[in-house]
Amino acid sequence: MPSATPKNPDVSRRSAHSRTAILRASVELVGEVGYPRLTIEAIAARAGVGKQTIYRWWPSKAAVLLEAFTDLVHSEEHGSGLPDTGDLEADLKAVLRATADEFSDAGFEAPYRALAVASAADPELAEQFAVRLREPGRKLYAERLRAAQRAGQIDPAVDPDLAVELLLGPFQQRWLNRTGPLTHAFTDGLVELVLRALTPRSAAD
Amino acid sequence: MPSATPKNPDVSRRSAHSRTAILRASVELVGEVGYPRLTIEAIAARAGVGKQTIYRWWPSKAAVLLEAFTDLVHSEEHGSGLPDTGDLEADLKAVLRATADEFSDAGFEAPYRALAVASAADPELAEQFAVRLREPGRKLYAERLRAAQRAGQIDPAVDPDLAVELLLGPFQQRWLNRTGPLTHAFTDGLVELVLRALTPRSAAD
Repeated sequence: MPSATPKNPDVSRRSAHSRTAILRASVELVGEVGYPRLTIEAIAARAGVGKQTIYRWWPSKAAVLLEAFTDLVHSEEHGSGLPDTGDLEADLKAVLRATADEFSDAGFEAPYRALAVASAADPELAEQFAVRLREPGRKLYAERLRAAQRAGQIDPAVDPDLAVELLLGPFQQRWLNRTGPLTHAFTDGLVELVLRALTPRSAAD
Repeated sequence: MPSATPKNPDVSRRSAHSRTAILRASVELVGEVGYPRLTIEAIAARAGVGKQTIYRWWPSKAAVLLEAFTDLVHSEEHGSGLPDTGDLEADLKAVLRATADEFSDAGFEAPYRALAVASAADPELAEQFAVRLREPGRKLYAERLRAAQRAGQIDPAVDPDLAVELLLGPFQQRWLNRTGPLTHAFTDGLVELVLRALTPRSAAD
């Protein structure tokens, strides 16, 4: 352990450790008790820190949770853009399969559902959720679709933002309403059907 | 007022009046206080009936509310199937425009959102919601798409149930997440994009 400047690195290590513990505790707890019953006190107790440590860094439980999810999602495939191998269908299938796997993990699904439910009921939380999590994710999809459009793989008449809604809306509806399983067969079929809408029609059409 | 058999018609009229008042009260209240805080007591008070009148007809607040919404939705365009003028694009646009208008009505939107939020958090309610409301609605869309498929307007390779998800998922996501307005421009564009996915490709493709 390097400790040439002994004091600050220790503080910084302790801070990093506390931050990780707080974010993990917030995600675990919201999955267990739901967003309305989540409290800063409970997060502090689970993380083994004082309440004031949390309030020093975050103004509210929403802020803690949104940072926790932003960390989670950024550690996944969304961090540095969608894959671009040049094969749009393969890339979208890979990303949606990975997303389906993520939503099949109860440790991710339960807290994410709690946050989604709370956001649907609370416009202010929905706004923060959108700015921190949803819009950055959708932007990555739209960028990938624009690259495909420039490569002539998507019809110039198609609005990439609407195309993203076409791709993600059915996934979310199936997940949130539990209308069907999030299998790879579903996500592959969805990508194939959406690409039928996006690809250029032949001159005959 | 006809009263040849004076007793039963009066009872029946009173029952119908109470039933209507109870269903209306349940819809109003869930929009005002949300599903978790909705009580049979409050519905009874608002409807001007005794609690026992409600319990005689329905086992739970969920049952009252689902019947209220089933009535509401059946009084709308969904009651007797989707329109079938032979013009699939015009028919789908008309139905989605009407649905968007419905969701722009706060008297419908607030209670429906409360029910959707509660269903997302509660698998048992979600199941009842699906059986009573969502699946019958989706079936009407799927039937309309199957008719179009038989008429050669939809590619035989397309799964009509997945196509319904493609049409309704983006609408629901935009509504529930408030990611954009439910304008006619949006629903028309959605129908046009989805139909690109559904229509038969030319032989050249």
